[in-house]
Amino acid sequence: MIIIGENINATHKKVSEALQARDETFFRELAQQQAEAGASVIDCNTGAQPATEEEDMIWTVGIIQDAVNIPIAVDSANPAVLRAGLEAYRGDQRLMINSINFEQGRFERVLPLVKEFHTQVVALVMSEQGMPRTKDDRVNTARRLIDALTQAGVAPEDIFVDPIVTPIGADATFGRQILDAISEIKEYSPQGHVTCGLSNVSYGLPQRRLVNRTFLAMAMARGLDSAIVNPLDSQLMASVCAAEALLGQDEFCLNYIGASRAGKLD
Amino acid sequence: MIIIGENINATHKKVSEALQARDETFFRELAQQQAEAGASVIDCNTGAQPATEEEDMIWTVGIIQDAVNIPIAVDSANPAVLRAGLEAYRGDQRLMINSINFEQGRFERVLPLVKEFHTQVVALVMSEQGMPRTKDDRVNTARRLIDALTQAGVAPEDIFVDPIVTPIGADATFGRQILDAISEIKEYSPQGHVTCGLSNVSYGLPQRRLVNRTFLAMAMARGLDSAIVNPLDSQLMASVCAAEALLGQDEFCLNYIGASRAGKLD
Repeated sequence: MIIIGENINATHKKVSEALQARDETFFRELAQQQAEAGASVIDCNTGAQPATEEEDMIWTVGIIQDAVNIPIAVDSANPAVLRAGLEAYRGDQRLMINSINFEQGRFERVLPLVKEFHTQVVALVMSEQGMPRTKDDRVNTARRLIDALTQAGVAPEDIFVDPIVTPIGADATFGRQILDAISEIKEYSPQGHVTCGLSNVSYGLPQRRLVNRTFLAMAMARGLDSAIVNPLDSQLMASVCAAEALLGQDEFCLNYIGASRAGKLD
Repeated sequence: MIIIGENINATHKKVSEALQARDETFFRELAQQQAEAGASVIDCNTGAQPATEEEDMIWTVGIIQDAVNIPIAVDSANPAVLRAGLEAYRGDQRLMINSINFEQGRFERVLPLVKEFHTQVVALVMSEQGMPRTKDDRVNTARRLIDALTQAGVAPEDIFVDPIVTPIGADATFGRQILDAISEIKEYSPQGHVTCGLSNVSYGLPQRRLVNRTFLAMAMARGLDSAIVNPLDSQLMASVCAAEALLGQDEFCLNYIGASRAGKLD
């Protein structure tokens, strides 16, 4: 499971304040804690204040790359900010762009960055018409994104399709739609990855973390092999650890048993 | 989700002792607690002592039917004990037989009981050669059981196929085999049910309840619609509740929200 740690996101108040205060310790620790908890990639979103987003991205990428030696996902709605983050990186890991999609010319503006910096990329199933409404919307846009990216020379295994999770509290069919979409996308591109941001699924419900971790295990049973989540949620990560063992991705359950001994499953 | 409460099982020492002591309160409360916790069916296995199993079954069925008005699954390796339990029942619920399979003439001896008492039935994927070894063994025996039962006049919706869960600690591929088998069995008989006993999956591992509840959510994502479990495991039942909401089986998430308000998801 490729866990993309979502915690460095300036739309969260605490992160935004630490960013304005240029609190290096805060960001260093947040990167290290996520890596320690099992993140394979650290997402970096500095999109709180458009006026300073670019310099904030450059500064934050600098802190993260000194704190941990794992890939960073530069995450912005603004392609100029993505470029600034990619150019600021001095490490030896391949980076990730979060994200490309078909909305408002974004595909054409982000693809050159994917190619120039040879990054991995989150491909969000937004079409020219915006958000997907049905399972078929999700699968069709996913296929078009995969086709367009691979035709442009991006390797299938560098594409992380995000089928866009929507709240089950708004429509009871949304959960099953996403699960079915995950299966179909994985079937279309077995070498490719399927990822998703989880937390929207539980929007408006009580005990959201229970819904999120239950959904994550269910989605893994349908082919999800990455997730954009809070790796500091220890119960969520315990579910991932158990699910990996159950899917045969943890030979002799050694990682699971080790996590148990380290007290990570309590 | 059709939860078959497994707690009244005389192979557990406490239950066996209460049975020998004819402790009515123990069995009444164990039935009521399971029903209260969400069991739809109460399994009844009195197979501790072969010499008294039949009279133990008759006595226990009598206690359960007075304690709760939900179906009982009579559970024995001995068809004569199954018959005794079915004959002892005086309530108005349809009963279940746990289980029929193809091993050593069991199919021919149990089928007449299914028909005479018009019961539902757990169909365990044991063939004439015994335990299944692969996913294909499971699916093939399941198809044969479904075909043989429906040809004998049993309605598909009265059949609960159990694909037999084996420990992932013994073979890392077992989890995925079971999940794939569940999908294929459900696809073969969409009106039929797929159930399973869970706890074997985690045999030999630490934090077994975590593995069990994670597996249950994953199996539900693949089509499992029943399980033979301990409904007094509140975290397990919370996972089931969240998974039902995620699968669109809980309109407006009302059951989930109610369970949260009742403190059942904590």
